[in-house]
Amino acid sequence: MAAQTVLIVYAHQSAGSFNAAVKDAAVDALKKQGCNVLVSDLYEMKFKATATKEDITGAVKNPEHFCYGNETMLAWQEGQLASDIVDEHKKLNEADLVIFQFPMYWFSVPAIMKGWMDRVLTLGFAYTLEKRYSEGIFRDKKVMLSFTTGSHETMFRSNGINGDMNVTLWPIQNGVLNYCGFQVLAPQIFWAPTHLSPEAREGLLEGWRTRLQGLLNEAPLTFPPVDIFDEGKGFQLKPEVREKQAESHFGLTVGHHLEKPLPPHNQMKAGV
Amino acid sequence: MAAQTVLIVYAHQSAGSFNAAVKDAAVDALKKQGCNVLVSDLYEMKFKATATKEDITGAVKNPEHFCYGNETMLAWQEGQLASDIVDEHKKLNEADLVIFQFPMYWFSVPAIMKGWMDRVLTLGFAYTLEKRYSEGIFRDKKVMLSFTTGSHETMFRSNGINGDMNVTLWPIQNGVLNYCGFQVLAPQIFWAPTHLSPEAREGLLEGWRTRLQGLLNEAPLTFPPVDIFDEGKGFQLKPEVREKQAESHFGLTVGHHLEKPLPPHNQMKAGV
Repeated sequence: MAAQTVLIVYAHQSAGSFNAAVKDAAVDALKKQGCNVLVSDLYEMKFKATATKEDITGAVKNPEHFCYGNETMLAWQEGQLASDIVDEHKKLNEADLVIFQFPMYWFSVPAIMKGWMDRVLTLGFAYTLEKRYSEGIFRDKKVMLSFTTGSHETMFRSNGINGDMNVTLWPIQNGVLNYCGFQVLAPQIFWAPTHLSPEAREGLLEGWRTRLQGLLNEAPLTFPPVDIFDEGKGFQLKPEVREKQAESHFGLTVGHHLEKPLPPHNQMKAGV
Repeated sequence: MAAQTVLIVYAHQSAGSFNAAVKDAAVDALKKQGCNVLVSDLYEMKFKATATKEDITGAVKNPEHFCYGNETMLAWQEGQLASDIVDEHKKLNEADLVIFQFPMYWFSVPAIMKGWMDRVLTLGFAYTLEKRYSEGIFRDKKVMLSFTTGSHETMFRSNGINGDMNVTLWPIQNGVLNYCGFQVLAPQIFWAPTHLSPEAREGLLEGWRTRLQGLLNEAPLTFPPVDIFDEGKGFQLKPEVREKQAESHFGLTVGHHLEKPLPPHNQMKAGV
């Protein structure tokens, strides 16, 4: 098998942070496996987070009503995207696996990482209306979220005050990653590391190193395939699928995803 | 009753956009009701989206391991936050209602608006571990999301390919807005306006103007109160509450929110 390429999109301001240690552990472990590892260190790069006209080097087509999605699609087709976006496109094209490494800010990724998603996942390059979800452009690539939280794990259980972490991750894991066709690996969640002793944090890193050994062979989470939805009915679930599902207590779409428990390696981490 | 102050946090690059028209309609309608209306036009302000050391004007306390949340809390206490954050704090203190107006990007707010949330909702100013959710600092203020989508409404139904829009909004409506104590009004969703005729878009604006007449008197969405969770058990639902709930098919936490249908004015809009 040819060497795998891993892109780590990393967002923490400090090289002394636990997020930095997690990123460094991944770089080390993956290189030892013979992987080619690329890192986009967003704060270090001073990555531009905002989606503006400056992302297009040529003339904007419709300056009176600037529509970022359409304008950047045309700029991509014509080779007129800003060079920082083109650089990320190249890395993404090379990558077999993308790891997003970040501290959770406000139940989501930090703005600088949301900016990476807004600007790099260009219409045409990363998805089209025909090529999305299970027909998505990146369906030969894997992806995962790896992040630290401020909250304890109990707070993000289905009976916890924050609600189920899977619900919080749904817009990103389904709406961004699965939407682009990526095979989404189970998230790596480091619960509230700032509340832990240095030894306990080292334990979390050891667990992460163990997971990294088998990461490239992990099976992804499951999401419903496009063909169970009826395009002629605005992409609603086909009635025959709905009837079949009604016999089970598992729902499709959100429920399909949510009712799967997190895999054991994830739960293990939570218990450290 | 004293005049109400409304802050519109607005994120679109173009004054010719439908989002701009929606924002302008809100400014007009609210001023006619005697409201004081403030607008933070994020792209126009070139609002800084990224959470960095530059947000603190004084010395950083722990430069080796810079933690944005802790450092900005201390800077807030000591009056050493960057002036653009202080300006937004002042507006937020004055506001009785905050409207976030944006085009949905990747199942969430655009990065520039996420940056507003990351930077302006400062620990200490917007929440503390003691003052959050139903005990939150902004519990006398109302808030709402108003946004355009690229997808049609059917795709965001519970049986649609994108899953229930309420799930997609959960991290923002619960994890950001309810977390800070805001009373969250039902979202105003403009479904796929770019696919509509100018007349149909005008119809959407008319519906919005009608809603704006009664907006300040609307009842907020309901979220579970803090006191049904047991702090001693990591903020999990108290067993006696769980047993009581088991008799009903409504769940608490996420389910509590999700199983409430969108109010009629929202469904009306979707049908235009």
